[in-house]
Amino acid sequence: MGKPSIPQGTRDFSAATIYKRNFILDTIRAVFRLYGFEPLETPAMENLDTLMGKYGDEGDKLIFKVLNNGLSDPKNTEKAKAGFEKLLQGKNTAELTERALKYDLTIPFARYVAMNHGQLTFPYKRYQVQPVWRADRPQRGRYREFTQCDADVVGSHSLINEVELCNIYHTAFCNMGLRDYALKINSRKILAALAELCGGADKLTEITIAIDKLDKIGIDKVKEELALKGLDTSQVTTIETYLAIAGSNEEKMAAIQLLFAGNETAQKGMEEISFVLVQTKNANISLDLTLARGLNYYTGIIFEAKAPDTVKMGSIGGGGRYDDLTGLFGVPGIPGVGISFGVDRIYDVLEELQLFPADLQAGSHALFFNMGADESLLALQQMQLLREQGIACEIFHEPGKMDKQFKYAEKKNIPFVVIIGTKEIEEGEAVVKNLQTATQQKIPFIRLAEFFKENKQ
Amino acid sequence: MGKPSIPQGTRDFSAATIYKRNFILDTIRAVFRLYGFEPLETPAMENLDTLMGKYGDEGDKLIFKVLNNGLSDPKNTEKAKAGFEKLLQGKNTAELTERALKYDLTIPFARYVAMNHGQLTFPYKRYQVQPVWRADRPQRGRYREFTQCDADVVGSHSLINEVELCNIYHTAFCNMGLRDYALKINSRKILAALAELCGGADKLTEITIAIDKLDKIGIDKVKEELALKGLDTSQVTTIETYLAIAGSNEEKMAAIQLLFAGNETAQKGMEEISFVLVQTKNANISLDLTLARGLNYYTGIIFEAKAPDTVKMGSIGGGGRYDDLTGLFGVPGIPGVGISFGVDRIYDVLEELQLFPADLQAGSHALFFNMGADESLLALQQMQLLREQGIACEIFHEPGKMDKQFKYAEKKNIPFVVIIGTKEIEEGEAVVKNLQTATQQKIPFIRLAEFFKENKQ
Repeated sequence: MGKPSIPQGTRDFSAATIYKRNFILDTIRAVFRLYGFEPLETPAMENLDTLMGKYGDEGDKLIFKVLNNGLSDPKNTEKAKAGFEKLLQGKNTAELTERALKYDLTIPFARYVAMNHGQLTFPYKRYQVQPVWRADRPQRGRYREFTQCDADVVGSHSLINEVELCNIYHTAFCNMGLRDYALKINSRKILAALAELCGGADKLTEITIAIDKLDKIGIDKVKEELALKGLDTSQVTTIETYLAIAGSNEEKMAAIQLLFAGNETAQKGMEEISFVLVQTKNANISLDLTLARGLNYYTGIIFEAKAPDTVKMGSIGGGGRYDDLTGLFGVPGIPGVGISFGVDRIYDVLEELQLFPADLQAGSHALFFNMGADESLLALQQMQLLREQGIACEIFHEPGKMDKQFKYAEKKNIPFVVIIGTKEIEEGEAVVKNLQTATQQKIPFIRLAEFFKENKQ
Repeated sequence: MGKPSIPQGTRDFSAATIYKRNFILDTIRAVFRLYGFEPLETPAMENLDTLMGKYGDEGDKLIFKVLNNGLSDPKNTEKAKAGFEKLLQGKNTAELTERALKYDLTIPFARYVAMNHGQLTFPYKRYQVQPVWRADRPQRGRYREFTQCDADVVGSHSLINEVELCNIYHTAFCNMGLRDYALKINSRKILAALAELCGGADKLTEITIAIDKLDKIGIDKVKEELALKGLDTSQVTTIETYLAIAGSNEEKMAAIQLLFAGNETAQKGMEEISFVLVQTKNANISLDLTLARGLNYYTGIIFEAKAPDTVKMGSIGGGGRYDDLTGLFGVPGIPGVGISFGVDRIYDVLEELQLFPADLQAGSHALFFNMGADESLLALQQMQLLREQGIACEIFHEPGKMDKQFKYAEKKNIPFVVIIGTKEIEEGEAVVKNLQTATQQKIPFIRLAEFFKENKQ
């Protein structure tokens, strides 16, 4: 076979990258638990009909489908042929594929809640950190396999959940060193009121989608798009007025109060926003009336987290409230609110700002030189004692030139080497060399563990 | 749609199970790092031709193949049809599927080493803990998605690696409370010598596969199978004599010394085993001449870990030495040795022996009652202070009857509730109730964190 490779849009993670990714994921997981959220893990594969039709036509096309096994078995031939015909017509094909890789964490979560709602204690607060797969065209920062990191509360209408999710963002970003993150909030109810004000409650989706593009395409293109969608000049002007509202949170609230005077939907939206702003008391959070969040199912508060201004990077997190998580699976009446963290983007931000802690590299602390089979017996014993004290160490794999052994320690960034030869065994002392300072000293065997505990970085 | 379900042979893991699984996985990962191994993660999907042909015909059939996307696009129709014809003939079909889910961790590891051998420091010691997928018929203890947990050293012929892998088993099992585990070792070289002795070095595979079944089918059936494979009565008797060797490690070594007198291959095998037994000095390790390990590629020492005798459970881990990891990928001359832990079986063993620590359940430590919007403001502040001290807590999602709030705490096993109402705000003290002892006391706000740190289980 030819040179080995991996599928486009997928990645191998070697140790250095894993330590950094785990710093992010472990920090976030620990914060979720601090807030009373519990973990959930669902399989990589879901039944195809659990996923199909949940992400729109475009989404459906990006789902990785898993071929049924045993299709070459003659007894399955007819079934396979029928399935293949449907596949060519772009239809669902249980005959050919019954399973698919999960596309996000929300639908599997909804499926789980629908299957287990009788056993769960509501409000159910869960977090989930798992890979998902999308057959998107790979590009810089967009992968076909990537980790999602979600927290949701379901079974509660209370805004205290929104408050706690804001607090989770705050604690998690601060714990990662991103004190200057920004959290934008808005309410879909304000956008709904805007649609009402423009005489077209039925135009909510189009308005939302157009506003969502403001950052990327600018106000003029947004206006063009709205006109194309059938909004007249006065409606477009109203939206432009709305989008131009600026100032502090209080000034914005006053302006929309004026704009939406008497509109009940807007009133509810403003109450939601006020509650969150008052209860979180957090200067990183601001009302952003231009925030729309492309996805369709949000109905209340929506969130978007941004990296500090010094880094050019889009959203590093987002979420919002939805009315009905599990209706699609036959269990109506379970509302919820959730957030997610964009792990790959956070990785790039921490890298750019040099915020990864220096001591993440968790390799060996000491390399024991291999001085022969008799000597290694004692070295192995000493190593077991060190490991019992939590000190990672290893022995060079074969007796050989000191040079070669030193080189291995250097390449692997191992800070200390320990030499136990015949002479050292007689004297009951090891030679310990610090490779950073190029100094060495003799340490009695019984003091080795103590020495390394004192000299742990 | 109908009632939601998950694919046969896959599992949802809820919090209680995740905490237990993580106890196992975190323990093993920490031990790997103590021994100087570094982590590696590879994608769930590999190119189909990376996997096909590596696991034998039976294995190939159990690989989950991922359907290419865009096959219903008219411009792909011809390609899809050609691929489908090949599929029906049981052939490889890049036109229909270019990717597949990984079937184990070894082949992706080999592919990784072949792709990156220029950058790696050898011996390269890596561990990998990731899910794999097999289209096996699901049954008790056998899943279609399950986690493998491997450690390998590649680029070294030295037996010190075998010694360290034995030590890893020891430290890991002891850290999980399984002090009475057993580790069986043998060498494929002894089995090769046995084949030579039976006049049929070419029969090594058949002999190995037959011996591997001894535990399950007993000696008589093994003899039958050997006869069926063409071994004559005297050869079968030699194998029976070999398999009957019993006693201490020393007695067994003496017996095979006698049986294989002068056979060089056997001599090398015995030297390997002696080295490992001497250097590990571990009473849990014993020579088991009936150990064969079904898989074909082992060439030296082989391992199998067993649960304590009190539990009826097969192997909970295994591994061995192989000559050539990456030859299949065009990079010859990289030998290695590896072990794996059987996570699902270890889970069942720890459950049966009640060895999971009692404090794994990492839910909230305190539930703050929700006494209304004004009161929750102060509660939220206090909660942030607790979380800064690492104390997990949450607030009930809405103001409501005390009964309901108590019930929620009970259901979620939260040990303390904290009540901050108007009166408590005035007095600067919270009412803290211990639900286990049903006692309550007043704690000044400024002492709350201290109180919970003292009362952490």
